[in-house]
Amino acid sequence: MGDVMGDVVGAAMDAMRRPAAGRVAVIGAGVIGLTCAWRLAGAGHRVLLLDDGGPAASQVAGGMLAPVSEASFGEEGLARLTLAALRCFPALVADLAGSGHGPVEQRSHGTLTVGLDPDDRLALDRLTAFRNGLGLATEQLSGRTLRRAEPFLSTSASSGVLAVDDLSVDNRQLLTALREAVAAAGVEVVRGRACSFDRDGTRLHGVVLDDGRRIACHTAVLAAGAWSAQVTGLPAHAQPHVVPVKGHILRLRPRGARPSTAYLTRTVRALVHGREVYLVPRADGEVVVGATTEHEGFDLDVRAGAVRGLLDDATAVLPVLDELTLTETATGLRPGTPDNGPLLGWAAPGVLLATGHYRNGLLLSELTAQEVVGRVAGGAASALWSPFDPNRFARSTHPALQEASS
Amino acid sequence: MGDVMGDVVGAAMDAMRRPAAGRVAVIGAGVIGLTCAWRLAGAGHRVLLLDDGGPAASQVAGGMLAPVSEASFGEEGLARLTLAALRCFPALVADLAGSGHGPVEQRSHGTLTVGLDPDDRLALDRLTAFRNGLGLATEQLSGRTLRRAEPFLSTSASSGVLAVDDLSVDNRQLLTALREAVAAAGVEVVRGRACSFDRDGTRLHGVVLDDGRRIACHTAVLAAGAWSAQVTGLPAHAQPHVVPVKGHILRLRPRGARPSTAYLTRTVRALVHGREVYLVPRADGEVVVGATTEHEGFDLDVRAGAVRGLLDDATAVLPVLDELTLTETATGLRPGTPDNGPLLGWAAPGVLLATGHYRNGLLLSELTAQEVVGRVAGGAASALWSPFDPNRFARSTHPALQEASS
Repeated sequence: MGDVMGDVVGAAMDAMRRPAAGRVAVIGAGVIGLTCAWRLAGAGHRVLLLDDGGPAASQVAGGMLAPVSEASFGEEGLARLTLAALRCFPALVADLAGSGHGPVEQRSHGTLTVGLDPDDRLALDRLTAFRNGLGLATEQLSGRTLRRAEPFLSTSASSGVLAVDDLSVDNRQLLTALREAVAAAGVEVVRGRACSFDRDGTRLHGVVLDDGRRIACHTAVLAAGAWSAQVTGLPAHAQPHVVPVKGHILRLRPRGARPSTAYLTRTVRALVHGREVYLVPRADGEVVVGATTEHEGFDLDVRAGAVRGLLDDATAVLPVLDELTLTETATGLRPGTPDNGPLLGWAAPGVLLATGHYRNGLLLSELTAQEVVGRVAGGAASALWSPFDPNRFARSTHPALQEASS
Repeated sequence: MGDVMGDVVGAAMDAMRRPAAGRVAVIGAGVIGLTCAWRLAGAGHRVLLLDDGGPAASQVAGGMLAPVSEASFGEEGLARLTLAALRCFPALVADLAGSGHGPVEQRSHGTLTVGLDPDDRLALDRLTAFRNGLGLATEQLSGRTLRRAEPFLSTSASSGVLAVDDLSVDNRQLLTALREAVAAAGVEVVRGRACSFDRDGTRLHGVVLDDGRRIACHTAVLAAGAWSAQVTGLPAHAQPHVVPVKGHILRLRPRGARPSTAYLTRTVRALVHGREVYLVPRADGEVVVGATTEHEGFDLDVRAGAVRGLLDDATAVLPVLDELTLTETATGLRPGTPDNGPLLGWAAPGVLLATGHYRNGLLLSELTAQEVVGRVAGGAASALWSPFDPNRFARSTHPALQEASS
């Protein structure tokens, strides 16, 4: 299949590299779609944004912008990408503010990773070594220092590692600001669900919606997250390798007389008997607790056991959570890929994929949009993004696919 | 205060005992208010029901109709009352069905009480002895029998006591049927919140609402649950001794392909390391898990620690709950009284209290309505209800108040 694909892609290369004329349609109104639409409009394109009103993963997320975690071992390419993303993310918030959109709360107190038992602490040590290998700034905190930094943490958290450069963002404020910005920039927002691409071997004619409407465009950016594989009309080998990975998340708020009590200053990530949990604080005292990882198709039900696990683990880290109001239990569907890396590149002439961001959609939003603007303008893949060409899985020798099928 | 009150009450006794002429206003549209309104209308009264649209405790409840529990020791009078209530409750559901209102699911599989550790089992033995003393039918189940009765129970539940006569009811279906029945019976339902009684020393003129409207009536039945003490205009000594006792409750449902899988046949009540939890099944597979007991005033926030405790305890009893969808986390305010018994009797001429039902509102609804019809018609308190005269706390020697103030 790899050779056939190579021929097809090769034949269409010139068409792909031409700067797209006319209208660009962005499919998907989560953080990736919105940021791409805004940055494309800013680059002078006439942009249409297709919003199916579905549940964007970025709306449910916690807003932790932390490039490297336990899950990152063996993913050095992804680590480099997310580190670059962390450096350029603040420009998005700053540009939104500069255009009068916001406020968007962005915190820069770093991410504190703690372990609660000896095994967890061993895993922490491995994480620190890995971070150091990437040249990342970390600070070891133990005992008194940790207690001073986060006095409400459980006494079981006897040591921690602070990733000083990590950020967090209020994802819901960011999405609201982006929606405002997109409208103000003249992007035409259309409510509808993309069903298929109307295309021939050399170019794209438009996008067909499930109600039969047809959006004429010469370029489409497919940023539909977990739903990206549902748009038909791409060659079989170019269908995005994206599956929904369900996550549960909780939102809690201080109660009563002290509504803005801050029980946490920085994002805390913990291993609790091997299970990862994170807590992201907001200035108004809200704490977001996430997140499970489940493969259950497009199911969005809130599973009792997931809520129980998150509450148990989060309370083991920050016992005072028991006293907060549980304001929301929610689920989201992350777009997972075989190697946990995003998919950015041409799937067919006129069809650019910007999807598969898995856990890193918010973090990668600005970097993705910059790359999308470059690619739509006819540029080649940048060095950072070249490992994330969507065609990497077409070769059946890709290690992630071999692993998945073994 | 006792003597002064005695004089006032004595002077008004004749007025109180006169059959009420004209319209009866029922204040409160929870299960007590609705049942009283319906039975009063059925007895030929012209009835007006005041519904403030607030959160009725009976709407949140699980619908367990179980007269005797761990909490019942020393409350023999209440045990007798609730046992009588259990016998007459089915008439309410039957009469509703006979009038074309329903369906109302009523289950008669009994309540199974289990203990998970040796201390819990000791408490169970005390409960059984107490039940036997009241002449109640119980069955001891152990090992294989228990497993056969409820195969999804945790293996930690090695023995149990089955209260064979206990019932459960779908409380939301019951309230819906009662609302239909009340409307069909010609009860005038007024949306509004009672603020005060317009009365003089010998009779009631009406009820004043918080928006200034005035409802003319000669008799008012105060069935406003936890909010009953907020209606002013009663003599100080006759203000109902009712406080809100918050309870958290969860609703769960089987997921996906087997939506009506029944993981439980009967109500299960458990002591989990000393904490009481109950699980009430419905025919459609729903399981209602309750309930905490908290004194937090009129606060209705869902506390994270309460949800966590209920999930942990309920899952310890029925591990499969982890796989169910958590469809609702809610709180309700029970009307608590100093001795956990209800308040039924005249507070002033024309003002009949029917409140303070604490955990037993659904169970006591029909028995309360029968008594209310009798009292409004000029009857004396029945023997079952005489221990629950609201004036019992006026005597400062009442043991429950002494205990509370010590």
